[in-house]
Amino acid sequence: MIILGIDPGSRHTGYGLIEQRKSGWRVRACGRLSVPPASPMAERLLRLSAELAALVEREHPDVAALEKPFHGVNARSGLVLAEARGALLVVLARAGLAIEEYAPAEVKSAVAGHGRADKEQVARMVRLQLELVDTPLTSDASDALAVALCAAARLSWNRRMELASRVK
Amino acid sequence: MIILGIDPGSRHTGYGLIEQRKSGWRVRACGRLSVPPASPMAERLLRLSAELAALVEREHPDVAALEKPFHGVNARSGLVLAEARGALLVVLARAGLAIEEYAPAEVKSAVAGHGRADKEQVARMVRLQLELVDTPLTSDASDALAVALCAAARLSWNRRMELASRVK
Repeated sequence: MIILGIDPGSRHTGYGLIEQRKSGWRVRACGRLSVPPASPMAERLLRLSAELAALVEREHPDVAALEKPFHGVNARSGLVLAEARGALLVVLARAGLAIEEYAPAEVKSAVAGHGRADKEQVARMVRLQLELVDTPLTSDASDALAVALCAAARLSWNRRMELASRVK
Repeated sequence: MIILGIDPGSRHTGYGLIEQRKSGWRVRACGRLSVPPASPMAERLLRLSAELAALVEREHPDVAALEKPFHGVNARSGLVLAEARGALLVVLARAGLAIEEYAPAEVKSAVAGHGRADKEQVARMVRLQLELVDTPLTSDASDALAVALCAAARLSWNRRMELASRVK
């Protein structure tokens, strides 16, 4: 069972793949997909799609997990983010991945124990749970791993068995 | 020279293709791409992408024209729309189309003569300019044709020659 967590962004999209070992969930790969900021939006989205498709092709996750979009905050950046999200969802659906979505508070709660934990606390718990104590980790990658860990905690054993046994 | 106007939506995406004849711009095809509303967002976006890709493949437009996203109004529906927009932009970029974007007021102004024209006035001018007087037209298709007409008016002759002579 491999879970791909994604933290979408129009410039940097964080990703984190975790898999279950006997000792618990461990990181298989993590990092960020980056696109040149100067290019037109459509080019950036195309590039982002291609990078995510290559990642999925290479790592064969069973499930993809993302945060639900949040409205408010900043309308302009929210729209850009939603465009990136739309492009990424198409790639995930095309690859036949199950897609799980969680509210930001749900992710914080699953990873750090309460829904109002700050970014620092979440990042620290991600490191602890995944035994990444000395590994450098960008905040995009850490956020993506947090969503993946949330899915790991929330998906029932039954659902996980069902997903893992899907014909790929 | 064929221009594809698009009016993105998560449920219905209007499209309108116009081409230049001796008598002026005429409609080559128009309608809407529809996806089942009950399915999950990612499935809908995948379906929408596939439908747009098939349309582009069939009609070989030189340019795609869309309205610029507008912020405000309704945050929730704005986000859904932006996700659809992101998915569509990837298809257009992948097909190598030039993409032109116009503010809503710019479209109204180009088609109906002033930037605060209402939907009715714009729809009437679309029909008049394209000689569609007795043809039934959904509002999605009419909006898409309006953006295409805006591009037809705004793209300079030089730019159009350049686009039309691109190797497809």
